[in-house]
Amino acid sequence: MVATMRDLGKKGTLEEAAGEALGQTLTVAQLDVCSDESVAQCLSCIRGGEVDVLVNNAGVGLVGPLEGLSLTSMQKVFDTNFFGAVRLVKAVLPGMKRRRQGHIVVVSSVMGLQGVVFNDVYAASKFALEGFFESLAVQLLQFDIFVSLVEPGPVATDFEGKLLEQVSAAEPPGADPDTLHYFRDLYLPASRELFRSLGQSPEDVAQGSTPQVIVKVISSASPPLRRQTNARYSPLTALKAADPSGSLYVRTAHRLLFRWPRLLGLGLRCLACGCLRSRVWPR
Amino acid sequence: MVATMRDLGKKGTLEEAAGEALGQTLTVAQLDVCSDESVAQCLSCIRGGEVDVLVNNAGVGLVGPLEGLSLTSMQKVFDTNFFGAVRLVKAVLPGMKRRRQGHIVVVSSVMGLQGVVFNDVYAASKFALEGFFESLAVQLLQFDIFVSLVEPGPVATDFEGKLLEQVSAAEPPGADPDTLHYFRDLYLPASRELFRSLGQSPEDVAQGSTPQVIVKVISSASPPLRRQTNARYSPLTALKAADPSGSLYVRTAHRLLFRWPRLLGLGLRCLACGCLRSRVWPR
Repeated sequence: MVATMRDLGKKGTLEEAAGEALGQTLTVAQLDVCSDESVAQCLSCIRGGEVDVLVNNAGVGLVGPLEGLSLTSMQKVFDTNFFGAVRLVKAVLPGMKRRRQGHIVVVSSVMGLQGVVFNDVYAASKFALEGFFESLAVQLLQFDIFVSLVEPGPVATDFEGKLLEQVSAAEPPGADPDTLHYFRDLYLPASRELFRSLGQSPEDVAQGSTPQVIVKVISSASPPLRRQTNARYSPLTALKAADPSGSLYVRTAHRLLFRWPRLLGLGLRCLACGCLRSRVWPR
Repeated sequence: MVATMRDLGKKGTLEEAAGEALGQTLTVAQLDVCSDESVAQCLSCIRGGEVDVLVNNAGVGLVGPLEGLSLTSMQKVFDTNFFGAVRLVKAVLPGMKRRRQGHIVVVSSVMGLQGVVFNDVYAASKFALEGFFESLAVQLLQFDIFVSLVEPGPVATDFEGKLLEQVSAAEPPGADPDTLHYFRDLYLPASRELFRSLGQSPEDVAQGSTPQVIVKVISSASPPLRRQTNARYSPLTALKAADPSGSLYVRTAHRLLFRWPRLLGLGLRCLACGCLRSRVWPR
């Protein structure tokens, strides 16, 4: 197994977690999914040059009013989140097709299934992954290659917490006072409540919630195209499924955030208690 | 009303169709959605500089085995189909928010709702539009600005026919013989049958099927977030809705294309006869 990261200077935590596997069944390698050369270089170091299972996990976030985001910053999100996965798949696909076996796992997001206010570009990049791999999956089944999209919900890590803090402190340029007010005083508190209530805790992550789903998907004899990891989130995606015109989701989300933010907070805490929770995994 | 096109050399047909409206209520202007300067220049020529209704229609196609497509050609599809719409929305949004009114209409595609084999990148670009505008719609409702995604199905125009002919004649580089065989001998015939059976005819277009839906959406007091234009296509998108894991759609599409292509042809002709058709518009 080869675990890759862009900056090998940060490999300490990973190597510690790997324990005795390090150097035996696991090696750590440098990879920048935005670079053709880096992808070629990384694959050339794999013994036999052949990849049986590819897990695409590279991703960056982007949150805030559209007016404050440059086209360049949006294109960078797509370069990593979408084209990074495409670049790797293009590189491993000829080998997988030749051997008529393989599994491509893509870490998408619940935001690849349902848009979320002030996350326009991030959601778009994850939707793009969903459309690309749903199309590709049909062809690849003919080569006995499986495609699985794993959709994590919010994960309450230090990283997420710090990101929200940084975003709260920064002054998004170009947005009007009303938009800034909605972002700071309605979205950010609701987002914090969402992470507190529905976010998988560091303990869940230690038990390997998302990684565990990935391992189960890889081990499955008949892998699903899509698998959400957070059962607490599923009542929220149900709104979209209930009305294909999309209006039910948009109007409900709008009312909860802008009209009844206290009800939203209460609702999120209610979802967290589990009384409405449906089981997503295992089933 | 301002109708825009990248190449004003092709404006003859449009001006002819416009008839007496030309120069009275309709003007034709140059616009390249991939250029910040062109967008700024075009908007500066609009009287008052304010846009009440923005219809994003610019789009390019890309079809064929992934192995034959360069990352650059894929990025170009995203530059037009996705970032083109984002660029225009960023330009008109401050004015719409200030006036607290506006309507953003985006011509998406049924491939923005459901992936289609050998259309991986095109579908991804349309999925990206769906995710972006679903996210944005929630915020914009607070400013009384509406967002509508219109999803046309296949349209049997000369353009589509010529594109399929060109693609059939060209040799996609880099793909293995099996993939080329599947693309040429299974996908292309099925695609032609799809256009023949479900494609909206030039007469439908003359009656304004997609444009008519856009006009109805714009005139609606309570515009939907999503509206498909081709009722014949809806049994195909129903497969995806029936199974959120995505496996039903992927496996059915795979079997129909690769195992039972004759049944696929028969099924498409059956859909065209309308016996299974559900009404999408009007309702």
